[in-house]
Amino acid sequence: MSFDPATLTFDARGLLPAVAQDHATGEVLMLAWMNAEAVTRTLESGRVTYWSRSRNAFWVKGETSGHLQHLVEMRVDCDRDCLLLLVRQEGPACHTGRRSCFYTALRDGEEVEILSPET
Amino acid sequence: MSFDPATLTFDARGLLPAVAQDHATGEVLMLAWMNAEAVTRTLESGRVTYWSRSRNAFWVKGETSGHLQHLVEMRVDCDRDCLLLLVRQEGPACHTGRRSCFYTALRDGEEVEILSPET
Repeated sequence: MSFDPATLTFDARGLLPAVAQDHATGEVLMLAWMNAEAVTRTLESGRVTYWSRSRNAFWVKGETSGHLQHLVEMRVDCDRDCLLLLVRQEGPACHTGRRSCFYTALRDGEEVEILSPET
Repeated sequence: MSFDPATLTFDARGLLPAVAQDHATGEVLMLAWMNAEAVTRTLESGRVTYWSRSRNAFWVKGETSGHLQHLVEMRVDCDRDCLLLLVRQEGPACHTGRRSCFYTALRDGEEVEILSPET
């Protein structure tokens, strides 16, 4: 079946969450948001493009930092209201310089930093 | 630092997205939503508990199906507005009987089913 972004289910703001996962290691890198046009741009360009809720603008991941996300495969969930992006990540995905945004683990009730900035 | 769910950033509905990942295989299984109390219940019980937006109620994953999610580790992202749950999943995570909800891949502009129901 041919894919049409308009068949996805977006929230009241016209957005859905997209989870980026390293295609090779399986590491979950980050979660951000897309509208229908961001989905289209990502598929057409192969460069993951989110919608920035803070800046109210398209956000080509890595456009300023150089830490681009190259799309390997996009997947849709059963409810069609969430995306999984298998990506090839250049450099760290997190703006803090860490490989993944999920660098804080909860262990025995404490917050533990499990990744350090790469540079 | 001791963890307090109240320090997380919830949206206008009091929710944040939580991504469940198989702790052993790295497979991303599903995305659902939690409020602060769901986070607390999950940490205290070790059984992943979401907030069902459709039923407006707590949702102990697998409570009726038996397909429980046992929490191995909870991680918080850099913006503290998203959670990653490393889980041990009993049976399929998806209500369709598939291991993961992300069973539809987009390949060459087409939707391709890449997982079949397990039973």
